[in-house]
Amino acid sequence: MLRSVGSVCAKIPSVFVPVFFPPLAHSTGKLLRWCSLTRPLSGSISRLHAVRGKLEAAVMDVEESLAPLRLAVREQGELVKKLKADDAPKMDVDKAVAELKARKKTLEAKELALQPQDDAIDRNKMEDALKRRFFYDQAFAIYGGVSGLYDFGPMGCALKTNMLQIWRQHFIHEEQFLEVDCTMLTPEPVLKASGHVDKFSDFMVKDVKNGECFRADHLLKAHLQKLMADKKCSQEKKSTMQNVITQLDNCGQQELADLFIEYNVKSPSTGNDLTPPMTFNLMFQTSIGPSGNIPGYLRPETAQGIFLNFKRLLEFNQDKLPFAGAQIGNSFRNEISPRSGLIRVREFTMAEIEYFVDPAEKTHPKFENVADLEICLYSSVAQTTGQPAQIMRLGDAVAQGIVDNSVLGYFIGRIFLFLVKVGVNKEKLRFRQHMDNEMAHYACDCWDAETKTSYGWIEVVGCADRSCYDLQCHTRATKVPLVAEKLLKEPKTIDVVQFIPNKSLVGKAFKKDARLVTDFLDACDPCFIESSEKEMHDKGSFSFDVRGKTFSLTQDMVGVKRFQKTLYVEEVVPNVVEPSFGIGRIMYTVFEHSFSIRPGSEQRTLFSFPPVVAPYKCSVLPLSQNPEFTPFVKSLSEALTRHCVSHKVDDSSGSIGRRYARTDEIGIAFGITVDFDSVNKTPHTATLRERDSMRQIRMEISELPGVVRDLSNELLTWAEVEKRYPIFVGQQTAKKELEE
Amino acid sequence: MLRSVGSVCAKIPSVFVPVFFPPLAHSTGKLLRWCSLTRPLSGSISRLHAVRGKLEAAVMDVEESLAPLRLAVREQGELVKKLKADDAPKMDVDKAVAELKARKKTLEAKELALQPQDDAIDRNKMEDALKRRFFYDQAFAIYGGVSGLYDFGPMGCALKTNMLQIWRQHFIHEEQFLEVDCTMLTPEPVLKASGHVDKFSDFMVKDVKNGECFRADHLLKAHLQKLMADKKCSQEKKSTMQNVITQLDNCGQQELADLFIEYNVKSPSTGNDLTPPMTFNLMFQTSIGPSGNIPGYLRPETAQGIFLNFKRLLEFNQDKLPFAGAQIGNSFRNEISPRSGLIRVREFTMAEIEYFVDPAEKTHPKFENVADLEICLYSSVAQTTGQPAQIMRLGDAVAQGIVDNSVLGYFIGRIFLFLVKVGVNKEKLRFRQHMDNEMAHYACDCWDAETKTSYGWIEVVGCADRSCYDLQCHTRATKVPLVAEKLLKEPKTIDVVQFIPNKSLVGKAFKKDARLVTDFLDACDPCFIESSEKEMHDKGSFSFDVRGKTFSLTQDMVGVKRFQKTLYVEEVVPNVVEPSFGIGRIMYTVFEHSFSIRPGSEQRTLFSFPPVVAPYKCSVLPLSQNPEFTPFVKSLSEALTRHCVSHKVDDSSGSIGRRYARTDEIGIAFGITVDFDSVNKTPHTATLRERDSMRQIRMEISELPGVVRDLSNELLTWAEVEKRYPIFVGQQTAKKELEE
Repeated sequence: MLRSVGSVCAKIPSVFVPVFFPPLAHSTGKLLRWCSLTRPLSGSISRLHAVRGKLEAAVMDVEESLAPLRLAVREQGELVKKLKADDAPKMDVDKAVAELKARKKTLEAKELALQPQDDAIDRNKMEDALKRRFFYDQAFAIYGGVSGLYDFGPMGCALKTNMLQIWRQHFIHEEQFLEVDCTMLTPEPVLKASGHVDKFSDFMVKDVKNGECFRADHLLKAHLQKLMADKKCSQEKKSTMQNVITQLDNCGQQELADLFIEYNVKSPSTGNDLTPPMTFNLMFQTSIGPSGNIPGYLRPETAQGIFLNFKRLLEFNQDKLPFAGAQIGNSFRNEISPRSGLIRVREFTMAEIEYFVDPAEKTHPKFENVADLEICLYSSVAQTTGQPAQIMRLGDAVAQGIVDNSVLGYFIGRIFLFLVKVGVNKEKLRFRQHMDNEMAHYACDCWDAETKTSYGWIEVVGCADRSCYDLQCHTRATKVPLVAEKLLKEPKTIDVVQFIPNKSLVGKAFKKDARLVTDFLDACDPCFIESSEKEMHDKGSFSFDVRGKTFSLTQDMVGVKRFQKTLYVEEVVPNVVEPSFGIGRIMYTVFEHSFSIRPGSEQRTLFSFPPVVAPYKCSVLPLSQNPEFTPFVKSLSEALTRHCVSHKVDDSSGSIGRRYARTDEIGIAFGITVDFDSVNKTPHTATLRERDSMRQIRMEISELPGVVRDLSNELLTWAEVEKRYPIFVGQQTAKKELEE
Repeated sequence: MLRSVGSVCAKIPSVFVPVFFPPLAHSTGKLLRWCSLTRPLSGSISRLHAVRGKLEAAVMDVEESLAPLRLAVREQGELVKKLKADDAPKMDVDKAVAELKARKKTLEAKELALQPQDDAIDRNKMEDALKRRFFYDQAFAIYGGVSGLYDFGPMGCALKTNMLQIWRQHFIHEEQFLEVDCTMLTPEPVLKASGHVDKFSDFMVKDVKNGECFRADHLLKAHLQKLMADKKCSQEKKSTMQNVITQLDNCGQQELADLFIEYNVKSPSTGNDLTPPMTFNLMFQTSIGPSGNIPGYLRPETAQGIFLNFKRLLEFNQDKLPFAGAQIGNSFRNEISPRSGLIRVREFTMAEIEYFVDPAEKTHPKFENVADLEICLYSSVAQTTGQPAQIMRLGDAVAQGIVDNSVLGYFIGRIFLFLVKVGVNKEKLRFRQHMDNEMAHYACDCWDAETKTSYGWIEVVGCADRSCYDLQCHTRATKVPLVAEKLLKEPKTIDVVQFIPNKSLVGKAFKKDARLVTDFLDACDPCFIESSEKEMHDKGSFSFDVRGKTFSLTQDMVGVKRFQKTLYVEEVVPNVVEPSFGIGRIMYTVFEHSFSIRPGSEQRTLFSFPPVVAPYKCSVLPLSQNPEFTPFVKSLSEALTRHCVSHKVDDSSGSIGRRYARTDEIGIAFGITVDFDSVNKTPHTATLRERDSMRQIRMEISELPGVVRDLSNELLTWAEVEKRYPIFVGQQTAKKELEE
């Protein structure tokens, strides 16, 4: 499954893989450390601390029940290792790996089941709030809707814009990355070279009569679960079927076909027969230009645009490594049967970074800045030995080789800081390393940032060291060398072998294509030159394809020259480290991690967004509809606009409590209330309320816009504001006075 | 041509229409007024003032040569008017209109030819600078490129991001518009209802042998121009052909076909015969989902997403009119043969606003804020009477009915302010009104913001009053009433006619579709009900289509009820005013209007971007590579990052002049130089240089980041900075001292 391990947009076999919650026994101090790195303790974290005592006592019991399962994983892990070391037949190794995965899954399910359930959210209630206040909703609903397509409304849009702005500040500006904005329409040869045309696919079966399509693995799983639920199903059969489900991700086309026959799977809608599983490419196809002969696709990821612009970016960086390209934009994936709301959609926003680095100098100069972060890491070793994820100092993880190199380590740290800044709960965030058998053959290490949601652990950011794979793909396809040059410390002498074309004969033979031929000959590698030379020697000619045409060259047209050359620079094919962010999934996580219900009031839902991402920073609420309030509200609103503070005026007639509730429901961070004291007394003051604590202070109206701006940019904390201004307890004047 | 008049992405027949430059005689004072509304005079404007004297003298001569042409237009305009008034045969009117257009074109060509040429830019030089410093470049270049597709590099990206951020601040935040972010993938029924499936097309001809495609009108024009260039071509034939070219935009399919035969047009590449002109739909088609039975398109504009979410946005706005939806995003248009660089591309970013307003209250409460703007307006009347465009006070234009209403007037003013803010030269900006025969039948007034570039006047923003057309399209297609309710001043009694279905019979007849049927019946208008009633009476049944299915209802299934009802609210189908921005075209204009070459130095190109849109706000240049400079550069860079000032450090070994030139070339607004005085003397100071004037001041390093931030946000002007800090003349210490 090409790029499936290196990209958020790609197939994630483990959406429902439940895994152990970071151990609590040794984490209280460390949690505070995380917090201090980012922002002051929010209400939800304090609440978590309150329940922590009870939890710690329970940890002992939990570990006791898990011990035999951990042992089972470890034993099987050792068996796999031994078989590999003994060079056992592939079939035996595969069988053992499948069993290892099955045991791992059982362990993880148990771990999740034993976890405290008191932080579970009511997903229906949350989704209702998101829909009702139009954060997002199904696209084309008045036309019946299309599954897997969603529209963001004003609140979702504002949150997304804020998140992307923070991303730009955190990566593009702070790291001086080079942003590009490439087209989504992509001609076929590009995606042929990257491997997407051949390998970016899922298996699908079709109803033979009405043509309805199903994703093969999902359908088979649902079918088996139904069979297993039958009371008459024997324990033995159940266990076999459970095994099949566990191994579904590893099934090839033929194995799937056999299973469909064995279990006699029919269409769940009609009972009709199904076709055998077929591969279905997940890219949306189209045709560029009027003639219909430039086949193209909507890009499945933004990364390719960065690779294709490598030479321009290198030049922009004055030909020096390392540097990074970055891109924010939409990608597309024609899911066979999308579900899980925002988690699996057909059109989504990604933000990707490609950090190009000399493979001989794979260390990051700023790694020290993140080395002290304590992050929950779920290493490949832990996964194959039944150990839980572990909170580690990032510096130690790199020093011990758990994370392959400090470039990868640096990005893990920066990703962590970004996610926490935009509102991901650090206690529900882990970095999971890909295991050998999950990782693409070209990747040398890969860590996914995963968040815990009501859908289980989901991948939100992939962070892979992809070595030199991608640049080489495009070099091979285009013969344009995507390399950097570096000065050698000492000059070096090398053997060179080159084609020497007879330009006049080549010109005569190929006319306007002659240039194409000579360019090709110039770019050939020694290996190709030597094999072609042999062919010419044996058969008198050799041929090759370029841009869809075949050219045949005879011995008189081209010779081969061998000589020595002294080099002062050498060519380097950069390695690339690729952090790849799924913005929709991060947003969904932030929704879940920010959602709560005010104690004692089932209807009062709340989104505790960090102020930097909150859709509106501030509300302005006049306590009365009396016209004397209007000029205060108007001038406040204008001053907030001048200070670039997004805000919402609610001058409707609802009670102030009801209006606060409406602002909490969309996560507005702060609320200004213009009350009777504001109007009656000078200097004119108003109250400012913090959403999570519901505490209020009072200050002069003229100061408010600046204070709210600084609070929203996190240049000021609420605690500091409380120290500076008096807590609000009640008004001193009232409606009566105003009327007099 | 559907929506062709209301949207930047749509066909613009007038890209090459040259029009009179705003008269200069009465504009000096007015220009200053424009400036004071936006930002201090830039270098290029002062330069323009310098040449103004000479120009004013020339205006008299120019007007003299234009007078007969103006008269010819006016006479023909009067003839058209008279023919229409007399209800003359359509053929005669059409002929007269075509002649009017021809005369208008001749006038405009002459006007452009007589204009001063000293503000012409060297487009090749500019495009070379844009490519070399990677503002943008052809996409997929290493694969041979695809025409009409461009990638933005770091500088283009930063400029675009800044421009969109200003757009969001100027419209979304200041006006409290409701932003949405909808999918680009769009199922066919939506674009069928909007009319794009049937009418969003150009005519194309194909080489019958190799299938090469050409846009019919472009090819015919090129062919005729070639014929006319032949010395043997008689004056009479030339004049006929010129007439054909002039009328090309009005040609239907059959007329085009006849002309291709008459002039014996062949393929310019092969000389082969061509097919007759055929319509080619300009949308990129794809298929959503695996079954291939949800045909879809990439959206041709962002507007439809706003219309489809009308109900949700109305609810978000607490059911009150007026309000506006807005969207920024990419749209797609499969041009037959794209050219003109960024002006005509296949994938582009748009920003669109749909302002929904009660048609009975079409006045804008904030119109007074823009009424005093003096804007170059080219009214429909001026165009048909041979008059030049005129600078007018916007308030007067609305009062005199030249602009239909103050909502449209308000947006014209706001669009003007936005364009000038991001760097469009006000002297090369006009608003051109669509003439009756250009305007879509549903639009009641339409003004395009056009900028003067080396391609002629190009449309960059469309601003149309589209009445209630779009909402009604989707209401008709979905039977979902896209309406608002408003409280009546006095209750009103009306006659109601309704279908009354027999639910049990309908349920039996249509099973799971029964709900679809009853929903449809509920939503029918009186006209449909009465005609159906008649049909039932005559034939015993009537039928209708909904969601692609046909239902037939008999008399026993449905009755018709008539009664009177007292209404307290009434339903309103809002009118919509649609400003639609082509971001790529605005960027291209800003490139041209900002580009210049330093006098006396052919190689030193310069982009005078306004600081708010400049890709980098500031450069940091150490004068020496001496290691003692490093800590100053590092801490300055960190402080600038903290102040969110995007910047570029250039510590390469080039001379300071060369490095300044490199920063000018990408339009960096300000430059900080760390020199020997910075290092040697306390308090540590550095110089700050303004790009356009190249003047420098000196200030303490600690103050610099804040000052540059305020300059970049236009909270501070360079003139103010010069007043506050000493002008830099030369260093007092030098390399020597440092080494001691």
